Amino acid sequence: MRIALADRQGKILARRAASTRSTSSPNMVVRQICQGVSHLLKETGVTRSSLLAIAAGAPGVTDRDAGVVFATSYLNGWRNVPLRSLLQSALHVPAAVENDVKLAAIGEHWMGAARGLRDFVFLAIGTGIAAGIFVNGELLHGPNWVAGEVGYLIVPGTPETPVKLGAPGSLESAIGGEGIRQNWLRSRNGHGLADDITATEIFRRALNADANAQVVLEKSARILAYAVYNISTVLNSSLFVLGGGVGVSEPLLKATRRTLREYTQPARPRLTVSELGQDAQLVGAVRLALDQVEIPIASNKSKTL
Amino acid sequence: MRIALADRQGKILARRAASTRSTSSPNMVVRQICQGVSHLLKETGVTRSSLLAIAAGAPGVTDRDAGVVFATSYLNGWRNVPLRSLLQSALHVPAAVENDVKLAAIGEHWMGAARGLRDFVFLAIGTGIAAGIFVNGELLHGPNWVAGEVGYLIVPGTPETPVKLGAPGSLESAIGGEGIRQNWLRSRNGHGLADDITATEIFRRALNADANAQVVLEKSARILAYAVYNISTVLNSSLFVLGGGVGVSEPLLKATRRTLREYTQPARPRLTVSELGQDAQLVGAVRLALDQVEIPIASNKSKTL
Repeated sequence: MRIALADRQGKILARRAASTRSTSSPNMVVRQICQGVSHLLKETGVTRSSLLAIAAGAPGVTDRDAGVVFATSYLNGWRNVPLRSLLQSALHVPAAVENDVKLAAIGEHWMGAARGLRDFVFLAIGTGIAAGIFVNGELLHGPNWVAGEVGYLIVPGTPETPVKLGAPGSLESAIGGEGIRQNWLRSRNGHGLADDITATEIFRRALNADANAQVVLEKSARILAYAVYNISTVLNSSLFVLGGGVGVSEPLLKATRRTLREYTQPARPRLTVSELGQDAQLVGAVRLALDQVEIPIASNKSKTL
Repeated sequence: MRIALADRQGKILARRAASTRSTSSPNMVVRQICQGVSHLLKETGVTRSSLLAIAAGAPGVTDRDAGVVFATSYLNGWRNVPLRSLLQSALHVPAAVENDVKLAAIGEHWMGAARGLRDFVFLAIGTGIAAGIFVNGELLHGPNWVAGEVGYLIVPGTPETPVKLGAPGSLESAIGGEGIRQNWLRSRNGHGLADDITATEIFRRALNADANAQVVLEKSARILAYAVYNISTVLNSSLFVLGGGVGVSEPLLKATRRTLREYTQPARPRLTVSELGQDAQLVGAVRLALDQVEIPIASNKSKTL
């Protein structure tokens, strides 16, 4: 869990990270957040009465209007957790909750690679795969709050069989971190290297003339290119911003661009990587918190958030 | 070309159809439209001064804001035709132009299968394939006006190679009318039936225990199911409305629903067929024309459009 304190311009004043490995119940997580807030206030010398709002990201399907985390496969699998009201009760300030990838998209839109764009896709590829989609300047949620769950896309090279609740989607099982690692292990018939090699390390080896790694990289890039192309064909997004541990891999970006370059019709999407990196979600959370107290984007007031 | 005269409630008073086979230049098409308007006014006894607005659909990429048809592969291939200003100059009333499939989506949203829905996809499958997409109650266009050009989707079973400008996209070449016909001919090694059999007729034969036709139907339905599933995964649309000559085929609808039923994550889209059929575009054009003179949806005035 990462937590930050920012002022009304969105400038991050202090931050903390804490493990949720031994945390799982919503009440425990909220307690951990409150401890983090107290710590950050003390560290910065900001009084508690100056705290204006809080926003939290959750790694799962989240109803932003109701403030409820419907489902996540992390944290021992939350179901229908009213995180917003839990946070409001605990901290006595307006709170907001949002899906973590959508938060990152808000961050990139506000201060990152997608500044000023009305139509773009933030595509997070890590253990999981999901997108935060802006159309007409607005974040897309969909009637069931699952817009952008593109880890389920089916393209040539991904499994075609239906997936069960909680299982990784087709695209995710092909080019999520674990899928790439499995591909690599299969390509070597289980020989040789340590099991805990990461996708990013595999892609790095591809640059060093490792033939197995090159095959995995090319295959991953082609599947990612099809996913980007398909999403672009639906939305006509002008930019795709890649994020997440796997998504920011430079060799993956270059190989995917190479494949995408051939696909010019009906429009050619631009592909780039996150400018905010791991901070994208934090910056998005700050923006969402500011929205709760209606502080406009161009605000230059100086009270602390 | 189909043309209709409607009143301010959207009730169609009269209609005409004319062939554009010997028509191709924009000026010829506009002249043909003007002749049609004169005919309809005379037929209904409506005075020319009662004509309030006109809206036209074009089978290609259309910039609704500028009123320009960028490109169409029909009508001998228009490029950058300022159809709106041509119509305004010729008819002296406010005019609007829109892509024909998007017009049909507007029609289904106003008076058809998607009444009252904020998020749905109208998916037209005929010679070509394209979608009109509503998100958050608004029609999606995209920065290059090509949102919804889903004939280019790449899914398992479609070609994967890049397509050139003017050539049919991957999905279109697999399950557009001509693609289905080619599949059928291939499945019979060119034997037997007349070359001019339609996709709808092939699907009808599948119901009559024609094994070749059944294979073509099942393959088409699976590809269509993947396309619907992928679009749904991006947008979380609650409803897909199938239209177009091939799209309204009942055997195709049933077979596609059967495949889609297995794909329950992250959300299960509903699939239905157009309620307005061939009139969807006309009804959408009436709505768009009414919008030009700002007549609200629930209007009950009685002046003629």
